[in-house]
Amino acid sequence: MRPLAVAALSLAIAACAAPPLRGTGDLGLVVERASGRVMLIETSGRSSLGRIEGLGDLSHASAVFSRDGRYAYVFGRDGGLTKVDLLRARIEHRVIQAGNSIGGAISQDGRVVAVANYTPGGVRLFDARTLEPLSEVPTGSKVVGIADAPGNRFVFSLFEAGEIWIVDASDPRQPQVRKITGVGKQPYDGFVTPNGRHYIAGLFGEDGLALVDLWAPEAGARRILGGYGRGEEPLPVYKMPHLRGWAVAGRYIFLPAIGRHEVLVLDSVNWTEAGRIAVHGQPVFAVAQPGARRVWVNFAFPNNGVVQVIDVPALKVVHELRPGRAVLHMEFTPRGEQAWVSSRDDGAVVVYDGASFAELARLAAESPSGIFLTSRAAMTGF
Amino acid sequence: MRPLAVAALSLAIAACAAPPLRGTGDLGLVVERASGRVMLIETSGRSSLGRIEGLGDLSHASAVFSRDGRYAYVFGRDGGLTKVDLLRARIEHRVIQAGNSIGGAISQDGRVVAVANYTPGGVRLFDARTLEPLSEVPTGSKVVGIADAPGNRFVFSLFEAGEIWIVDASDPRQPQVRKITGVGKQPYDGFVTPNGRHYIAGLFGEDGLALVDLWAPEAGARRILGGYGRGEEPLPVYKMPHLRGWAVAGRYIFLPAIGRHEVLVLDSVNWTEAGRIAVHGQPVFAVAQPGARRVWVNFAFPNNGVVQVIDVPALKVVHELRPGRAVLHMEFTPRGEQAWVSSRDDGAVVVYDGASFAELARLAAESPSGIFLTSRAAMTGF
Repeated sequence: MRPLAVAALSLAIAACAAPPLRGTGDLGLVVERASGRVMLIETSGRSSLGRIEGLGDLSHASAVFSRDGRYAYVFGRDGGLTKVDLLRARIEHRVIQAGNSIGGAISQDGRVVAVANYTPGGVRLFDARTLEPLSEVPTGSKVVGIADAPGNRFVFSLFEAGEIWIVDASDPRQPQVRKITGVGKQPYDGFVTPNGRHYIAGLFGEDGLALVDLWAPEAGARRILGGYGRGEEPLPVYKMPHLRGWAVAGRYIFLPAIGRHEVLVLDSVNWTEAGRIAVHGQPVFAVAQPGARRVWVNFAFPNNGVVQVIDVPALKVVHELRPGRAVLHMEFTPRGEQAWVSSRDDGAVVVYDGASFAELARLAAESPSGIFLTSRAAMTGF
Repeated sequence: MRPLAVAALSLAIAACAAPPLRGTGDLGLVVERASGRVMLIETSGRSSLGRIEGLGDLSHASAVFSRDGRYAYVFGRDGGLTKVDLLRARIEHRVIQAGNSIGGAISQDGRVVAVANYTPGGVRLFDARTLEPLSEVPTGSKVVGIADAPGNRFVFSLFEAGEIWIVDASDPRQPQVRKITGVGKQPYDGFVTPNGRHYIAGLFGEDGLALVDLWAPEAGARRILGGYGRGEEPLPVYKMPHLRGWAVAGRYIFLPAIGRHEVLVLDSVNWTEAGRIAVHGQPVFAVAQPGARRVWVNFAFPNNGVVQVIDVPALKVVHELRPGRAVLHMEFTPRGEQAWVSSRDDGAVVVYDGASFAELARLAAESPSGIFLTSRAAMTGF
């Protein structure tokens, strides 16, 4: 074969060296926080498919997904926004967009990625395809609890200002902002219910939660569970609970209490307290297993080597797991047959059978924290 | 270039002729019922990607998806079960498994496909990878309303026998059957609520619905809405409503009434009637738009050129669309920003903006009926 032909053949083969065809519905990422990389996983065979490096500071990192499930958008603590191609296992785009970001969301139509920033306070909107910056919504306050809502809206809370803002990003170069003021002292996190109707922010500076009906935002915020904890002396708070993972199971919402060894149960029909469940430590995440029958809870230091499972009809703990030291996150496959749990200090991601609690797999990972599956692409409020 | 080199290059290029890499989260199928084929669609650009032929009799066909979103399992009326590779746009496997099938489901773990048969009555289980037959559950009665439920269970109704059966397919070669007898006369369809807890069957032979709590199946079935329609003279029934599409929007379930120009509203907290909504004709599907704010309804002949949109908080019709003649089906993208609607007699699939109702696209299709998106792979009860 002559050199030209060899070159042409090599080129053709190189062009061929694409990864094998595969669906993206069973893919996900595990954040390896200490090393600035993510591990690519798949849940059908429960295996690791590789690693993607160079994502910067991934402490407290989170991720959302493109509507086709091919790309992840990873929000790093250093303000880095990284678009990862899961099929090619490589970084597609990366921008450093602010000094200190705390999370993000993707619009209902999948065209806009929003990043929430502590420093400087505000929300920045990016083109989901190119990561080109589109606009900025300055807030003058730390932004927490950002979530997407129907109508290409983003909803978030302002920590110092005590406000909830709703940004309509239908025209992402000219976002429309609705401000709800006086929602309460120091909202520290918030979330949109899975049906996209309500936004709920937890308050650190006083008792209770702020509730906004996104079908009637002009009505403002309403205080719920205002009497909770009144007159009691809370424990020192080792770690703020995360509300993004607050669990909606049927009519009940399960809330990790701040500074208490309790999970609160909120009735979403009448927005009153439906119970309190004593648990092993200060809860961090309370996550509803799809199927709404069980809620899994992890805990703050020093009780963070345990996961407890709450039975929803009984409203009590029925099972306890010990995946390893420093359990940071839990993620269910979308139909609930598997639970993926990260143990940072044992360097493991443990996969459990969602029905029998049997350990199905244990993958080695370096200081794993957040676990994010592509099924989030199809969900509102993630 | 010498012949050998040319041959090698051609071979290399042919090996390369794999479809381009793409995510599967925005893919779907439209059944072209008259021609035994399906149209492959994608919802990001709202386009047709091609057609797959040779699926047999597709009248009344439906589809479920593999957990990775790559494969569709299409259930044909002639008993054909066809596994379609969406990435290669071709048939992967096909079996003729019975004389007359009426639908199917895929297990929670994605390993087992169940097909419900009219003739002979029964349910057959197949390996999702190979379509190898695994076992059979004979019923001696037409099987209707099959749906998956947590715990790798399949739930379905027996038309003549008036029973609801729950099959645990955790060991699919030896399925375990629980029979609930005396649920009512002639259950004609049924569905599992999105949270996987309840199975509801509609009754044709008497008033009301049969409700089973899958968390406590030993308690049997309970009659709900038993008084509905009592003493009233129903209209002739032009087409049985479909319950698979019954709409759960927040606490309400919207039910197409049989033989009446009404949609019933069922309160899922106390299982009582919460209202009736007058509509344009005899409803066939009532489908909740993700976001739970609106329910879209299509109709039986002769009123089948219209789609009406119900506002959930107002419990009334607020909008009307005319996509074309003989509207057979509606499917929403999982976050609700688009509605895909098939007009059989105008040979069109029409895509609407879920917020503004603007027509976004109109694709030519031959007698289109069912529309099925891969996002169903992540849902329980589809």
